[in-house]
Amino acid sequence: MNGKVYLVGAGPGDPELLTLKALRILRQADAVLHDDLVSPQILSHAPKKARIYDVGKRCGQKSTRQEAIHFLMIELARQGLQVIRLKGGDPLVFGRAGEEIHALREAGIDFEVVPGVTSVLAAAAAAEISLTMRATASSLLIMTGHFASANDRPLPDLHSLLASGTTIALYMPGPDASLTASKLAAAGLPWRTPVALVSRASTPAQQLILTTLQELPQIAMQAKPSILIIGDVVRLSPDARLRLETLYGQPLPPQPAISPATLNANQAVNHG
Amino acid sequence: MNGKVYLVGAGPGDPELLTLKALRILRQADAVLHDDLVSPQILSHAPKKARIYDVGKRCGQKSTRQEAIHFLMIELARQGLQVIRLKGGDPLVFGRAGEEIHALREAGIDFEVVPGVTSVLAAAAAAEISLTMRATASSLLIMTGHFASANDRPLPDLHSLLASGTTIALYMPGPDASLTASKLAAAGLPWRTPVALVSRASTPAQQLILTTLQELPQIAMQAKPSILIIGDVVRLSPDARLRLETLYGQPLPPQPAISPATLNANQAVNHG
Repeated sequence: MNGKVYLVGAGPGDPELLTLKALRILRQADAVLHDDLVSPQILSHAPKKARIYDVGKRCGQKSTRQEAIHFLMIELARQGLQVIRLKGGDPLVFGRAGEEIHALREAGIDFEVVPGVTSVLAAAAAAEISLTMRATASSLLIMTGHFASANDRPLPDLHSLLASGTTIALYMPGPDASLTASKLAAAGLPWRTPVALVSRASTPAQQLILTTLQELPQIAMQAKPSILIIGDVVRLSPDARLRLETLYGQPLPPQPAISPATLNANQAVNHG
Repeated sequence: MNGKVYLVGAGPGDPELLTLKALRILRQADAVLHDDLVSPQILSHAPKKARIYDVGKRCGQKSTRQEAIHFLMIELARQGLQVIRLKGGDPLVFGRAGEEIHALREAGIDFEVVPGVTSVLAAAAAAEISLTMRATASSLLIMTGHFASANDRPLPDLHSLLASGTTIALYMPGPDASLTASKLAAAGLPWRTPVALVSRASTPAQQLILTTLQELPQIAMQAKPSILIIGDVVRLSPDARLRLETLYGQPLPPQPAISPATLNANQAVNHG
C-alpha cells in the first residue's frame, strides 16, 4: 500500500514558529525532504530512524533538480512511507509545490498540504509594521525579486498599486541591491518610497534596515533569507520617521492619521 | 512593574495550526483578549485562572469598540499581567494590530508580535492550489471585500494585475455575493475569471466551491470565515477543469504547461 506525502510549511526560521500539526506529522515521518532554509532544530523533531534528504536549491550552487525531488517523493511513498516535503515558510507561496502536487497527482500518490507561517509575516513582526492599516494600506502584494524573469507577461504597475494603498512585499530580493532597486523603479516605484529590509526574520540573527528605494543600493548585502517591505506602512515602524527624514533631508508629511473618528468607524471583522 | 502584551496569530481555524510559540505564550497568559473567530480549543490552552475577554467584532452585531480594546490591554499590562491579544490568522494582516501597536507604544507598554498562519494559506491548502506557479502566477495580492470603502484612494487595477499573472485573494468577501462579484467586475476582472470560494478552511466544516465570477452570485452565502481565490491558479485545483468547462460551455485552453524545459530551469530558492 502506498504511503502519503505531506507538503509542510516549516515557517519563517524560528523553530517555535512551526505549527502543532507540522510537529505531529514530523514526529511520525519515515522520510523528510527538506529545503536549505529549514533549521536543524526543526529537523530534529523527526524520528532518529527517519531518512533525511537535503534537496535544497540555492542560486549558483549545486542543486537537486525538481524532477529528482518528484521522483524521490513518489518512490518513497510507493514504499509505503510517510514522506514529509518540508519547505521554508508556507508551501504554496513560491515553493514550487504546484509542480510537486501535479507530479503526485499524476502518480496517484495521496498527499496533504499543511500550511505554515509565510516569511513576510515574520518580517513584519520583526519590524513591528502592520502590513495593512486603515487609511494607509488596504492590500498586500507578495512577489519575488525574480519577477522580471518569471514569464513574458507584463509586470504589475507598482506605482498605481502603491497609490491605491497596497503594501508590497518582495521575497528573495536578490544579492544585487542596485539591480533590485532599478527593477522596482522601472516598475513604477518612486525613488523616495520607504522600504524595510528584513533579513533572517524571527531568528537570533535577525536584522532590520529602514531606508528608501534610492538608498537601497548603498545597503550591504544581507544574509538570506531576506524580505523587502515597500510602502507607507514602513513609516509606522519605530524610528522610521527620524531615519526617513534624515534620508529625505526634510520633514515627512504628517503620520497617517489615527483619529478617534477613524477608530470609531464600524469596520471589518478582525480576521487575518 | 508593567506586564507585556503579545499580539498573537491564532491561525486560520484548525487548533493544530497554532504555532508552538503561540501555545507556549498562551499557557503563561494572565489575560486573553480574543476575536470571535478563535476556537474554544485554542482558548483552552490558557491557564484556568486566566481572565478571558471576548472582544470580537462582527458586522451588524454588538461589538467592542477599538478604543475599549486598547484601554483594556493597557490597563491589564499596567497591573503587571502577561496579556495575549489573540487574533484569527496573522495579527498584521487585516487585524487592526497597527492601531493596537500605536496605542501600546503611546502608553509605553512592552509588546511583541507573534505571527500566525494567515487564512489564505489554509484556503489554498484546502483547494490544493499553489498560490504562485511558474508560468501561471508570479505574485499574490491579498485584499478584503471591504476594499471599495477602505479610503478615498483609487482601487488597484485588477484586470492588469490578473494579466500580469497575479493571484488575488479576497478576505471577508462579504455576505452579498452579487455585490462582491459586481465590485470585482467594476475593478476590471473579466466575468469568466475562475474563482474558488473556500469557507472555514482547515476546520471540519470546510467547504470549497469552484466557479467563475459570473456564476458567483448564484452561490449560496457561505459560513464565515470565507476567502475567495481568484485567477488562473484556480484551474489547477482537482476537478476545476471539468467544472469550469461546464460553466464556460466550451473546452478550456490547455493547462499551463509544465514542460521538462520549464522544470529544468534553474530558479529561485524554495522559500515561501
